[in-house]
Amino acid sequence: MKVLISKKTGLYYYYTGIGDYHCKEGVIKKIDIDSGEKIVKSNINREFLVFNANEYDITKKYKRGPQLINPKDLGYIIARSGISKHSLVIDAGSGSGAACSFFANFVKKVISYDIREDHTLIAKNNSKLHSLDNIEFKVGNLADDVEKLKDIDLLFLDMPNPVEILEKNLEGVKSGSYIICYVPSISQIQEITNSIASKDNLYLEEISEVILRHWRVWEKISRPEHRKEIDHTAFLVFIRKI
Amino acid sequence: MKVLISKKTGLYYYYTGIGDYHCKEGVIKKIDIDSGEKIVKSNINREFLVFNANEYDITKKYKRGPQLINPKDLGYIIARSGISKHSLVIDAGSGSGAACSFFANFVKKVISYDIREDHTLIAKNNSKLHSLDNIEFKVGNLADDVEKLKDIDLLFLDMPNPVEILEKNLEGVKSGSYIICYVPSISQIQEITNSIASKDNLYLEEISEVILRHWRVWEKISRPEHRKEIDHTAFLVFIRKI
Amino acid sequence: MKVLISKKTGLYYYYTGIGDYHCKEGVIKKIDIDSGEKIVKSNINREFLVFNANEYDITKKYKRGPQLINPKDLGYIIARSGISKHSLVIDAGSGSGAACSFFANFVKKVISYDIREDHTLIAKNNSKLHSLDNIEFKVGNLADDVEKLKDIDLLFLDMPNPVEILEKNLEGVKSGSYIICYVPSISQIQEITNSIASKDNLYLEEISEVILRHWRVWEKISRPEHRKEIDHTAFLVFIRKI
Amino acid sequence: MKVLISKKTGLYYYYTGIGDYHCKEGVIKKIDIDSGEKIVKSNINREFLVFNANEYDITKKYKRGPQLINPKDLGYIIARSGISKHSLVIDAGSGSGAACSFFANFVKKVISYDIREDHTLIAKNNSKLHSLDNIEFKVGNLADDVEKLKDIDLLFLDMPNPVEILEKNLEGVKSGSYIICYVPSISQIQEITNSIASKDNLYLEEISEVILRHWRVWEKISRPEHRKEIDHTAFLVFIRKI
Repeated sequence: MKVLISKKTGLYYYYTGIGDYHCKEGVIKKIDIDSGEKIVKSNINREFLVFNANEYDITKKYKRGPQLINPKDLGYIIARSGISKHSLVIDAGSGSGAACSFFANFVKKVISYDIREDHTLIAKNNSKLHSLDNIEFKVGNLADDVEKLKDIDLLFLDMPNPVEILEKNLEGVKSGSYIICYVPSISQIQEITNSIASKDNLYLEEISEVILRHWRVWEKISRPEHRKEIDHTAFLVFIRKI
Repeated sequence: MKVLISKKTGLYYYYTGIGDYHCKEGVIKKIDIDSGEKIVKSNINREFLVFNANEYDITKKYKRGPQLINPKDLGYIIARSGISKHSLVIDAGSGSGAACSFFANFVKKVISYDIREDHTLIAKNNSKLHSLDNIEFKVGNLADDVEKLKDIDLLFLDMPNPVEILEKNLEGVKSGSYIICYVPSISQIQEITNSIASKDNLYLEEISEVILRHWRVWEKISRPEHRKEIDHTAFLVFIRKI
Repeated sequence: MKVLISKKTGLYYYYTGIGDYHCKEGVIKKIDIDSGEKIVKSNINREFLVFNANEYDITKKYKRGPQLINPKDLGYIIARSGISKHSLVIDAGSGSGAACSFFANFVKKVISYDIREDHTLIAKNNSKLHSLDNIEFKVGNLADDVEKLKDIDLLFLDMPNPVEILEKNLEGVKSGSYIICYVPSISQIQEITNSIASKDNLYLEEISEVILRHWRVWEKISRPEHRKEIDHTAFLVFIRKI
Repeated sequence: MKVLISKKTGLYYYYTGIGDYHCKEGVIKKIDIDSGEKIVKSNINREFLVFNANEYDITKKYKRGPQLINPKDLGYIIARSGISKHSLVIDAGSGSGAACSFFANFVKKVISYDIREDHTLIAKNNSKLHSLDNIEFKVGNLADDVEKLKDIDLLFLDMPNPVEILEKNLEGVKSGSYIICYVPSISQIQEITNSIASKDNLYLEEISEVILRHWRVWEKISRPEHRKEIDHTAFLVFIRKI
């Protein structure tokens, strides 16, 4: 896959390699895109920067189902949870597959649950864009299976009611590993902290939110971006398995 | 390595496995720590949660040299840069080794430069705590070598003058990959944007900062943490190689 | 003036007291609006809360010229600058009059400068909505007059080049009072700090930005608002007159 | 009152006008402080900037009781609530008097309640530093009096249980005016929104928090301040009286 950025409009286009590329800024020939030139022109003479897509760009071509988890959150999860390329991650729900594909890009294996078959299908198709073969998709409720799973290095819960999982026997999560709940609302955090207050093998270690601020710095301008963006995605609750 | 959390004080202790553990909350016997019990007692009857350390905990035992890069920043870098377990990352300067060890935990190979031999030594020793064997440490100026390096998936620059690198021929960075500058001050971003304004093969894609906010949610309390924390670390400049 | 809030859409309507009120949610009769009832109905049976407008509501009826300064910034200025109802405030430029009308609502007198007559006209008309008589509007460059002004308790500069004023003799600003510059960009702060570095009678006391975060708390929801909002307006530079 | 800033340490000293001033940077003579010179020297040759204190500086000399409300919050309250110099403000609890003195500096009259006589005494003494004569202090529970009060332009509640007030008949608050609750915790907002959900004459208009970020811009440095500061004070709940 290649990325094209219009020099005039700054818009990004994602080219999947089949035929000439048609967009509102004209037609760009396949032969030009594949030529290795850094700048190519459309038939109406617009110039485009051309470069190879990376794993992040690929998410822009995802078929959309449930909202994608933002890289700011995925990044902090992977950095703060202490996992590595040898890890096993359990993920629920699969949603559009952004989280499980992201983890799978870095860890040994991901098992991803969703109760909705349509979500699993979207997530599976999106993961194929990354050429990943280390995700096992399961249609079903993680709550039914979690007590059978073993050697979990990270249990990532992006679901409306994570307490249902926290109430299970979580001895399959390794000592020292995290259960991370991704929840949009403070009310959900309250339910989570109530649930684990009485549990000796779960320790509430951190509740945090990651806020991303974009800047514009160019010539005499240097200020936060004016473009309007959604600042809140979700809170992250880090629960340590004892 | 094991982590012990005092139930009374909430303090964390890191046990590296040799002998009994002595701290101001008493002596905890090795035999107890290794027993597999989730809660152990010191000789003065303090209780401690005991669990295995993960890769994040290990950074708490680092020998300190230059300041460690925060997980909030490392996480966003790995998530936003589109790299994967197949990637080659170049890192300069090595500093205390937090960035190169973090990357090495997930990617194929890291080459880490520092002009100071003492930093390289600290970074190397810290990386050993993670049992990593995929970091190549180099004492020297990356500026001297960067034009010889090939197939770079991420060039991460945490140095006072990244412009020195940006002014080099960066054809060794793959098309579509990022050069990411980690800089504390807006003034440095201004120098960077001035430097790349005239370069056809570098595209300024994003300038951002990652802000982490901690929360306390417990019983009737639910508010941002009062503990005073440093909110600013650095800005991240994402430059795309065309 | 009265404010009407539609119970169905949550939209705000501002009624200036003349005739029946026509909007896309129907016609509301003047006699109903003036009846003292807290809830009235339009001809299509929509319900509206009705209450008296306050000084803040009035700004919603301003004729728009240059962008209004946000209450978050005006508030911090009045609270941090140590002025009171006995103060004289100099304001430049007048813009749409939000700042000078705000100050005039609380202080003894405001003199407001703008080099553009059209702005002065807009600001003057907008100030009349508040029934204010303590603003003196001047068409012209504050730089030409500032050395003649006396007993200034606050000099508020919302202009592209505040350095032009800082380079003047500012002995008309009282000892201990502030010159506050409202500037969108870090680059402008750099110019300001360069300008005052050599001046014995100006002391850079604080550079800050005020960030406002909206929350939604209702039943099981409690999270930051998702509505997209502009988070950055400007930086505030507090310069103390010695 | 005068303010002295040490040129060496940047520390602020507040001189109340009696005798020579003794501090750890030496003794500064009264005659020098009162001379009108902008820079004076202590007996150990340290230089100090000297200027007149303003209303904000005076709060630094407050006798401390309960924590002072921050100017960032007071400012937004006065700017967003639409009050003016003609307004009547009711304030509870008095605490250390920062809020009531701040309001009294700008509005016509403040009535300030506190159930603790010691707080009232502190607040009263602190208000005297501002030479204010438009605050009426009451020792007692606002809940007992609020139904008798009339023509309220702003009802400001900084108390553990504002719901106690919201449950009263608030017809003494003018139509269109605000009841503003200042509460540290989301849990308290939940109680407030539950309380007013069923009330026809109260409309929840805004829940917000004001975040202040300090910057350092000097020569080649331009970044957020590293000094550690408390970022969270409280949430502000704006309830509109219909």
